[in-house]
Amino acid sequence: MTEKKAYNVAVVGATGAVGQKIMQLLENKSFPINELKLLSSKRSAGKKLLFGNKEITVEEATPDSFKGVDIALFSAGGSISKELAPEAVKRGAVVVDNTSAYRMDEHVPLVVPEVNNEDIANHKGIIANPNCSTIQMVAALHPIKKSFGMNRIIVSTYQAVSGAGAKATEELKVQAQQFLNEEEMEANLLPVSGDKKHYPIAFNALPQIDVFGDNGYTFEEMKMINETKKIMHDEAISVAATCVRLPFFTSHAESVYIEVDQDGVEVADLWKVLEAADGIVLQDNPDAQEYPTPLSAADKEDVFVGRVRKDLDNPKGFHLWVVSDNLLKGAAWNTVQIAQSLIKNNWL
Amino acid sequence: MTEKKAYNVAVVGATGAVGQKIMQLLENKSFPINELKLLSSKRSAGKKLLFGNKEITVEEATPDSFKGVDIALFSAGGSISKELAPEAVKRGAVVVDNTSAYRMDEHVPLVVPEVNNEDIANHKGIIANPNCSTIQMVAALHPIKKSFGMNRIIVSTYQAVSGAGAKATEELKVQAQQFLNEEEMEANLLPVSGDKKHYPIAFNALPQIDVFGDNGYTFEEMKMINETKKIMHDEAISVAATCVRLPFFTSHAESVYIEVDQDGVEVADLWKVLEAADGIVLQDNPDAQEYPTPLSAADKEDVFVGRVRKDLDNPKGFHLWVVSDNLLKGAAWNTVQIAQSLIKNNWL
Repeated sequence: MTEKKAYNVAVVGATGAVGQKIMQLLENKSFPINELKLLSSKRSAGKKLLFGNKEITVEEATPDSFKGVDIALFSAGGSISKELAPEAVKRGAVVVDNTSAYRMDEHVPLVVPEVNNEDIANHKGIIANPNCSTIQMVAALHPIKKSFGMNRIIVSTYQAVSGAGAKATEELKVQAQQFLNEEEMEANLLPVSGDKKHYPIAFNALPQIDVFGDNGYTFEEMKMINETKKIMHDEAISVAATCVRLPFFTSHAESVYIEVDQDGVEVADLWKVLEAADGIVLQDNPDAQEYPTPLSAADKEDVFVGRVRKDLDNPKGFHLWVVSDNLLKGAAWNTVQIAQSLIKNNWL
Repeated sequence: MTEKKAYNVAVVGATGAVGQKIMQLLENKSFPINELKLLSSKRSAGKKLLFGNKEITVEEATPDSFKGVDIALFSAGGSISKELAPEAVKRGAVVVDNTSAYRMDEHVPLVVPEVNNEDIANHKGIIANPNCSTIQMVAALHPIKKSFGMNRIIVSTYQAVSGAGAKATEELKVQAQQFLNEEEMEANLLPVSGDKKHYPIAFNALPQIDVFGDNGYTFEEMKMINETKKIMHDEAISVAATCVRLPFFTSHAESVYIEVDQDGVEVADLWKVLEAADGIVLQDNPDAQEYPTPLSAADKEDVFVGRVRKDLDNPKGFHLWVVSDNLLKGAAWNTVQIAQSLIKNNWL
């Protein structure tokens, strides 16, 4: 028995929106912690945060912060992960990284535990947490793919502002109040902090999340396409994405079209595998107007699926509406699940 | 020369959101009016409305209201159209109906002038104006279909609350202020007035527009599917729709996936036919972050298209983002265009 009873855990980016959710989950899920280290950029160092009833001072993350750390959960932006994750690994920690820094690195497993948990075993020190909009989609589609095969995914997203950080949440609130006061809305941040132009998000929809690549797709769209193939271990599956930012605070929703391989699959077959799947809650009763919404899914760890319909022209085509809290299953909860799996399976 | 110089026009539902837009357009486009009659339900009769600088008293619509009327523009709900449109026709008027009452009637042309203007010639007294979300989609797709063929459409919509009427607009405003005040949001109307359950639309997304049919699709989704085939004169084209109500006031946006028939079509080919098409404005420059949004398209008559991309897996597949003011091209403007065409082509 090599399993330790309790672990030294570091949360990097502890003061951020996702870092805070990670701390809540570590506490609520009684994660077996010996010592919890809270790390951040220099700017946030010195702040005091409560973990349970214990006050912990946030320290600036440096290479030597990771001495003695068993598990380091990174959620402080790509550049900090690029700089410090290898340093943490050198010092013996296993890193679960919530940024895009290592996701497409062929030596780094990209994991949604309900889909490809066993990939964690192959880690070389770093395991990557996928993009929020990818996680909930593959979680919902994996049980269907496993049962009936799947060769095609076309998704249009409806994404919350909290995916762009706490400042974007504040910008939506300020703009909404400005509009209701019949004042001009000030746009300084969205769609992308640091990009050339900014547009109001309140009472609007912005078909741009992250910057544009040369092929006319945004990086967010390419993340959904590339990460889905990697997580599903299926380079041949056709994946297309259109990602849209919308004026709500929490939870991403997705209108997903799929084509299965098998003949004769019916909606009831999809319901059955979705109901049996870990982490999925089926909310699909048109007669009772039951379907998930961003508000109904907020603050919950599950992925909610509704509006399951057979395509009227293609007997192998189906439509689904997939909703989940982008900060929980889309980020913090998936990260903590990977850490739980590392311990449970002795994969540290 | 049988063309008259000026016409007796009736607007049925003059006090409603679309009726008001119709009156503005009749004035702004200098529609050749001899006498303008404003009609409504008994409830709104007696109100006085300005047309130009002339005050007109709204009268209750009855069968005899249509005596001497040349063109009657109906926008007062399906039951009034069902009752009174035939009475107007009996009395010699040609009806342009903006409700769903006659759209799928095989004897009634369903018209988007940029797509199937010539169908107006076959009218037997009534011409139907399509559903708002259908109009902007077929307007954008028709020039592509005409040039390259098209066999498949999959659309996910992002629809404004004004499509559910002035009360829905008010509900969004009230709920948004309640949320910002940290009060509970009151939901009394959306997604569907008179349906069993109501959910907040502010800072949320509701995957239900109109009531559900037995096949799990909403009526709004079935309208998009059936009306598109009728307007395009193509029963064989595969059309799938997922319709979602969102917290903005004006303009519907649509994430549209299409498959063309021809080989070797490129994005530049689509740009070319879209730029040349009547009523379409191409806004597609990722480098400059140019794309249409609900706010940018509001109060404009055109259909705006951006985010044109080739599917990465299917060389005949393309993605588009289509946005238009749901009360203008989606309703009032298309209605007035049909009336203009009736006159211009001597089809009254």
